[in-house]
Amino acid sequence: MVNAANTEDVRAPASLETPLSVPNKMLMAAGPSNLTPRAAQAGGLPSLGPMHPETFRLMDEIKEGLQYAFQTKNPVTLCLSCAGHGGMEAALANILEPGDTAVMCKNSFWFDRASDMATRQGARVVPIDVKPGQPLTLEAAEEAVAKHRPRLLFVVHGESSTGVHQSLEGFGAMCHKYGTLLVVDAVASLGGTPLYTDRWELDVVYSGSQKVFNAPPGLSPITFSPRAMEHIQSRKTPCPVFYYDVLSIGDSWGCFGKRSYHHTLPVTLFYALREALALVAEEGLTASWRRHQLAAQRLHDGLERLGLRLLVEKPEHRLATVTAVLLPDNMDWATLLRTAMARHAVDLSAGLGPTFGRAFRVGLMGTNANPKAVDRVVNVLQDVIKNPIAAA
Amino acid sequence: MVNAANTEDVRAPASLETPLSVPNKMLMAAGPSNLTPRAAQAGGLPSLGPMHPETFRLMDEIKEGLQYAFQTKNPVTLCLSCAGHGGMEAALANILEPGDTAVMCKNSFWFDRASDMATRQGARVVPIDVKPGQPLTLEAAEEAVAKHRPRLLFVVHGESSTGVHQSLEGFGAMCHKYGTLLVVDAVASLGGTPLYTDRWELDVVYSGSQKVFNAPPGLSPITFSPRAMEHIQSRKTPCPVFYYDVLSIGDSWGCFGKRSYHHTLPVTLFYALREALALVAEEGLTASWRRHQLAAQRLHDGLERLGLRLLVEKPEHRLATVTAVLLPDNMDWATLLRTAMARHAVDLSAGLGPTFGRAFRVGLMGTNANPKAVDRVVNVLQDVIKNPIAAA
Repeated sequence: MVNAANTEDVRAPASLETPLSVPNKMLMAAGPSNLTPRAAQAGGLPSLGPMHPETFRLMDEIKEGLQYAFQTKNPVTLCLSCAGHGGMEAALANILEPGDTAVMCKNSFWFDRASDMATRQGARVVPIDVKPGQPLTLEAAEEAVAKHRPRLLFVVHGESSTGVHQSLEGFGAMCHKYGTLLVVDAVASLGGTPLYTDRWELDVVYSGSQKVFNAPPGLSPITFSPRAMEHIQSRKTPCPVFYYDVLSIGDSWGCFGKRSYHHTLPVTLFYALREALALVAEEGLTASWRRHQLAAQRLHDGLERLGLRLLVEKPEHRLATVTAVLLPDNMDWATLLRTAMARHAVDLSAGLGPTFGRAFRVGLMGTNANPKAVDRVVNVLQDVIKNPIAAA
Repeated sequence: MVNAANTEDVRAPASLETPLSVPNKMLMAAGPSNLTPRAAQAGGLPSLGPMHPETFRLMDEIKEGLQYAFQTKNPVTLCLSCAGHGGMEAALANILEPGDTAVMCKNSFWFDRASDMATRQGARVVPIDVKPGQPLTLEAAEEAVAKHRPRLLFVVHGESSTGVHQSLEGFGAMCHKYGTLLVVDAVASLGGTPLYTDRWELDVVYSGSQKVFNAPPGLSPITFSPRAMEHIQSRKTPCPVFYYDVLSIGDSWGCFGKRSYHHTLPVTLFYALREALALVAEEGLTASWRRHQLAAQRLHDGLERLGLRLLVEKPEHRLATVTAVLLPDNMDWATLLRTAMARHAVDLSAGLGPTFGRAFRVGLMGTNANPKAVDRVVNVLQDVIKNPIAAA
């Protein structure tokens, strides 16, 4: 009840009296990427409840769009209401039980995160050491899987901290020989480089809305193979996190023949992702993959003309969507990023994990993977290297 | 590499060829509520990266707005990148360790969810049985806390499944006598009914963006008292969920003197919440609380004029933001909701948990807590009861 005692102990902040102002930048970093106008506009549409029929239809359409993007017929294909980091943790939490072994490719920042999460879940993590900038070979993977017979093997398809493209062909069949499930991080790659969930027998694949899809950050698309679901349905312990439990969330996505309330869904983000997936379907995946590859090739050529060197040496190991570039002599990453932003409103990324302090990163994702954007970035880098802005 | 093998195994779905169309409804259910134009517009603004200075300022402003809404000076006040359900799970996961005891008020749907989550985390849950529609008394709470000396006591301030307003005065001091932390669910109440985090010694309070704030769903504001943080910093085991770990997320929110990357933040939702908090600050909490109380009184009077009965008998136990109404004779909830939506585009809620099949629920949250909206709902209910639309 409101009464005379209801004075305010903490006063309203003055900072909120100023109207919000959000600058427009050219987002050529490792993510998030620029929104397409269609996705941005959809993000401002009216709310709907989680059990409204229009929401169910929206979710069905997102599911179909994601099945296309993941190249899968998996019925359990949906979108988690969290960032890609949540998708990573959900993938692990649904598969692992305390005491399980997880073999993980260790060549990037994402190993640090995934192994941290799996350890919190009570699993034993066995790393496969791979030099940053190089992919895991099928032979090295099989050696570790054969030796440890783990519950899962974790690999990153689009390794955005170093710019490595991890080939996945043969990995699924190899894992299944040993009763191991294959968990794939495709946050930075999905839609921008070929990925075949069913053809390659991938068991869990997750991604993010804010990369190639050009939708706002905050959603993590994910798909589970029938083999993964069979394991999940026969777990001895429940998934340790309700919010991630695909057996419950799957019900709100209609994956198991009914609809039930799991949580209040972030519908405005769903609208934007739905429109983003419509654009992917309109262009076609094959065309999108080719466009990303051509843009990356143009970028790599342009960088070499500037005398810059890529971290990943072999062209066939280079990721189309994120490129790690060794820092030029006499330039620190902060100066490079600051100059590109201050003078040109171009967003680039610092190095991350093994590339921190060694490289900077350029993202070409979705709508930004086009010749004009590439040329702009190369021109900006040329200027930045010639005329850096000194620290204040 | 893209090559001739890159055919598509799964074809683009036809459903995405149709443009997205989102209907406008009057959202008078238990949530989400209608967006304010200012919040909706902000949700369509351009993306920013998680380490951009504008993003840091945005987060600082949200933090100040939330400190005001929570009536707290807690430095660890921030917004989790998940729904209110995630906020509930994060509150429990940060406090509980395996083997800990959690005493929980059992009078609602939210007990089911909270006890499920705590059990998954390895805690022992002790329920305090309270009749649905009634609040927990301080005496009953103290009896249970004194007996079990639990790590935490869990109560729901705005009990949206039954429409109960849970008084919190005295609960914090009582808990602290026994070394227990007080965890409060304020998802349906924050901003709409008086809540004093510091004055009442609440240790963890969480809410949702899509209720009284009229922002899109997908964010969970949360605050931790210094007492809660002291416990968290001395845990024997890490928080079991990286995505929820306030020691890491707090760093991305600048709570501990530095800024580090935790996950890619859902900035477009942040924009909308920031604008929503600016509106709360503009009106003032006291005025908002009074407005919600007046709207609820008007609704309750109107419902009684229609011959309808509220589930919560005592006026002082009634929640201002969500009202549970017993179903009229000869009318099932599905017919009532269907008629209100089909003929009037008014969204009402079915019962939930203990009220399922017994009651329907009306929400008056934020911008919807005004006399015109109340009169509209009462008029619509009058028509619905007189002329229900039969099932197809």
